[in-house]
Amino acid sequence: MHVFSFYRRASRAFHDYPSLSKLIVIFTVSSGGLVAFSDSKSYHGANNVDSSETDFKKKRVVVLGTGWAGTSFLRNLDSSLYDVQVVSQRNYFAFTPLLPSVTCGTVEARSIVEPIRKIVRKKKGEIRFWEAECTKIDAANKKVHCQSVQEVGSDSKEEFVVDYDYLVITVGARPNTFNTPGVEENCHFLKEVEDAQRIRRSVIDCFESASLPNLSEEERKKSLHFVVVGGGPTGVEFAAELHDFVNEDLVKLYPRVKDLIKISLLEAGDHILNMFDKRITVFAEEKFGRDGIDVKTGSMVVKVTDTAIFTKEMKTGEISSAPYGMVVWSTGIGTRPVIMDFMKQIGQANRRVLATDEWLRVEGCENTYALGDCATINQRKVMEDIGVIFDKADKDKSGTLTVQEVEDVIKDIQTRYPQVELYLKNKKMKNILDLLKDSKVDKEKKSLELDIEALKSALSEVDSQMKNLPATAQVAAQQGAYLARCFNRMKECEENPEGPIRFRGEGRHRFRPFQYKHFGQFAPLGGEQTAAQLPGDWVSIGHSSQWLWYSVYASKQVSWRTRFLVISDWTKRFIFGRDSSRI
Amino acid sequence: MHVFSFYRRASRAFHDYPSLSKLIVIFTVSSGGLVAFSDSKSYHGANNVDSSETDFKKKRVVVLGTGWAGTSFLRNLDSSLYDVQVVSQRNYFAFTPLLPSVTCGTVEARSIVEPIRKIVRKKKGEIRFWEAECTKIDAANKKVHCQSVQEVGSDSKEEFVVDYDYLVITVGARPNTFNTPGVEENCHFLKEVEDAQRIRRSVIDCFESASLPNLSEEERKKSLHFVVVGGGPTGVEFAAELHDFVNEDLVKLYPRVKDLIKISLLEAGDHILNMFDKRITVFAEEKFGRDGIDVKTGSMVVKVTDTAIFTKEMKTGEISSAPYGMVVWSTGIGTRPVIMDFMKQIGQANRRVLATDEWLRVEGCENTYALGDCATINQRKVMEDIGVIFDKADKDKSGTLTVQEVEDVIKDIQTRYPQVELYLKNKKMKNILDLLKDSKVDKEKKSLELDIEALKSALSEVDSQMKNLPATAQVAAQQGAYLARCFNRMKECEENPEGPIRFRGEGRHRFRPFQYKHFGQFAPLGGEQTAAQLPGDWVSIGHSSQWLWYSVYASKQVSWRTRFLVISDWTKRFIFGRDSSRI
Repeated sequence: MHVFSFYRRASRAFHDYPSLSKLIVIFTVSSGGLVAFSDSKSYHGANNVDSSETDFKKKRVVVLGTGWAGTSFLRNLDSSLYDVQVVSQRNYFAFTPLLPSVTCGTVEARSIVEPIRKIVRKKKGEIRFWEAECTKIDAANKKVHCQSVQEVGSDSKEEFVVDYDYLVITVGARPNTFNTPGVEENCHFLKEVEDAQRIRRSVIDCFESASLPNLSEEERKKSLHFVVVGGGPTGVEFAAELHDFVNEDLVKLYPRVKDLIKISLLEAGDHILNMFDKRITVFAEEKFGRDGIDVKTGSMVVKVTDTAIFTKEMKTGEISSAPYGMVVWSTGIGTRPVIMDFMKQIGQANRRVLATDEWLRVEGCENTYALGDCATINQRKVMEDIGVIFDKADKDKSGTLTVQEVEDVIKDIQTRYPQVELYLKNKKMKNILDLLKDSKVDKEKKSLELDIEALKSALSEVDSQMKNLPATAQVAAQQGAYLARCFNRMKECEENPEGPIRFRGEGRHRFRPFQYKHFGQFAPLGGEQTAAQLPGDWVSIGHSSQWLWYSVYASKQVSWRTRFLVISDWTKRFIFGRDSSRI
Repeated sequence: MHVFSFYRRASRAFHDYPSLSKLIVIFTVSSGGLVAFSDSKSYHGANNVDSSETDFKKKRVVVLGTGWAGTSFLRNLDSSLYDVQVVSQRNYFAFTPLLPSVTCGTVEARSIVEPIRKIVRKKKGEIRFWEAECTKIDAANKKVHCQSVQEVGSDSKEEFVVDYDYLVITVGARPNTFNTPGVEENCHFLKEVEDAQRIRRSVIDCFESASLPNLSEEERKKSLHFVVVGGGPTGVEFAAELHDFVNEDLVKLYPRVKDLIKISLLEAGDHILNMFDKRITVFAEEKFGRDGIDVKTGSMVVKVTDTAIFTKEMKTGEISSAPYGMVVWSTGIGTRPVIMDFMKQIGQANRRVLATDEWLRVEGCENTYALGDCATINQRKVMEDIGVIFDKADKDKSGTLTVQEVEDVIKDIQTRYPQVELYLKNKKMKNILDLLKDSKVDKEKKSLELDIEALKSALSEVDSQMKNLPATAQVAAQQGAYLARCFNRMKECEENPEGPIRFRGEGRHRFRPFQYKHFGQFAPLGGEQTAAQLPGDWVSIGHSSQWLWYSVYASKQVSWRTRFLVISDWTKRFIFGRDSSRI
């Protein structure tokens, strides 16, 4: 995390040499009237925060959700600076990447959860938690409407309103059924701990049902047909877990039906795990083939009734149906109703998902942040801003840029537009100068000047690197930590903005924009084999990656308790196998 | 288990010296015409079994239930001798004495269950298991009607009929509400694993509800009022567990409400734990007093609404009410509907509970056995049979018994009427001779003879020792093991009955009657203290008994898996405390 270590070092420097910070401010003021104005404004803001801390109450921060983003935010926030309240339906944080393991009892549900009250207990300031659902965000009045999860007293659920100064939305997403008929009613999802527990019971139910007397072989086969819809990492991991559970544990206990079991994995695209490297996809498809998992790609589910699942062959358009015992639906994520309603309020009604800027601020809404699966960052394109970038860089207003002028803004461009860095990395270049060099600005001709067309052509490709961040725990956790650090340094950065130049405004941004750092991704394939795609296109498949997977997942646990439990669950599974009691 | 080691030794003797068994048979036959007839009858039966094993199918044994009695029966049964089928709603065995620990997460639910299929898998013959509820026992046609637990296919639950030759009923009991209004709807019970899991969630619910904003102190207090109804071992242990959970774990996480928590323990009788030694009762009441658990004895619950619990003071008749957050009802056991229906069929309609004889055979029904909490042994009184006992003992029909004649039947009387042994033990006597001595049969006057009045007066007190066995796991497990051994030796014992003389018939009983051996009982009182009442009136209270409790409960686990899990749960609790996630 270079960004943060830079923050830390800078903040320490300011702390140790208070005169240094003044120096920098003076330097900024001297650089122009408008800049000085902007600085005085931020001074004013800083004073306000200051006075509110002494004269008034602390600013109220309300966090919605206790998933990866929310919990990461809370863990990293200096809660002594704010009056923090958390609203969530779950009074715990769940280590969701292990949910597929919970479905088959490789890991117990309770081993991957940690009460949110326990997580925030060690913090300095008090963080209040309300176990409630946020039913409405009232952006105009800065209020959230909540409803308790359980009935209080006899009659009904408790409703209450929480006021905020800052709102941090981390409510996550819901499963996306693509409005396929019958999915909501007949399929299992795999988003919550309760889902995983239900799936586990359901698998055993299928085996017990298939074992009842007086059934035809057809009926038994139906009960033992497990269908996984969606060939993404979750679906694939669940199919693999289920295969292991069935073949390592259940066949011993249900020997009479073991030849009737079938696992189908349906994927509408051409390949499973299509966000992974081709090598992983091929390996996974071959392994599943050997394991007897029926992988059907190019097959889209069009309807699910209570007894059968209907699929359409993408190539031929042919519709066929198959009876099933259980369907797990894992095809992607959709927007929660409360977010849909909120988007209407703030003029994002025709968007598919809540949009924020690179600082995770919700567009069209003040002091409101959204992170994790419920939002996407609406990145600005370099090409859209190319005019203002050129103007800002062209200090002497000559209409052309000297190499010196370009060098002065290089850092700011790279920071403000994270796609630039990504592009350079892919092209194995060091900085924009290399790009410019490419576009025929000869390094030796340092005197040669660059007009706007040349800059445009140099940067023309960088926006191609823009893509939405994946809806993963890794992204959410990094966003939570990033935002917490912004909140922690809100006051300092009002005074001494540490972000890049505002190309379309004056002064500097308070903070550097969020930048995601990808540490790689795993796809467990069962049989103690895992595919790992690590940064730098490093692909590793097999038993060694499984051990890497074990160690990464153990080390990423939020508490020593869950770490102990997860490891002891793995040990237990190695020794005793998985439990098949229907509880 | 002297009885069984005797069986084993005897059976080995017969096996090693086949001529011996013939010798004994010949001896029996020579002892009289009628006896010879009875023997030939049992020979015939034995041949039948023999032929059925070679020519026909094995006898079908159907076991209803997988609790302590059923599982103990299955574990001890030689399943190669029978065609065994098990019908139960639970596909697992649960170590119920640890249920109170599950309610608060001291032990996890999954740590105390073991799939029944896993338990029976290692056995020689195949044991078939149906996850279904027995809805009706058709005693006349030797069929049980079953209904699957889950819906099979889309529409409805699968119904099927199982035929039996022998039926072993071990369905247990249901909670007894004594028809108190509102109990069924508003109270938690503590009989099943699911109950314990629900209670655990409910405790957390109460704390989360009480922590919501904008509530009055009254409302918070209501949510945090936990009521336990019934001062028996289960109720007391749950109250103690809850107190520990609240004070060791929850107060840290819910500091704002910690002063509003109240635990009430209601008992209609004069004391809690009244089946225990007085010292334990006093200690428990004092400890609970110090802990702040509100023990209300002489207080009977008359009604439970969705917000308040109504109690009647036994002494004054005064009725008062209290708002509550959660009620756990643990006052005793009642008869399941399927057993009620069965009792009507076999002429036991006006009994409170299914009656068996000392061999666990259901009265009024052939080849049907009932054990565990669903049945009680209807012991025969010595005084009722005193006439036939006398006649049988008086071999020379002289109207009086010589000491020799008494000595000849002493063993049979003691075996047939287990209350005799219990009585002698209590009086610290060795055998009936001591009793007779008491009643003025001088030992030196060996020639002196005993008339029926003298025998009556000698045995007049023994029936006072008769009492129903407690509804405990210990009794059920011993009954299951006993019955399995009877089944295992059915053939041998048809030929060579090993039971006592039939006083009211001819010949000998095939088996010795069931005799319960009490190994003591625990009452955990929280704070790492347990009261233990061990045989011989040995009472131990405190931390040392807690460690005894740990070791006994660990050693009694049905599998190494659950043993490992339970111990690791205890370890986990010591290190990390209990989890408060609402899952």
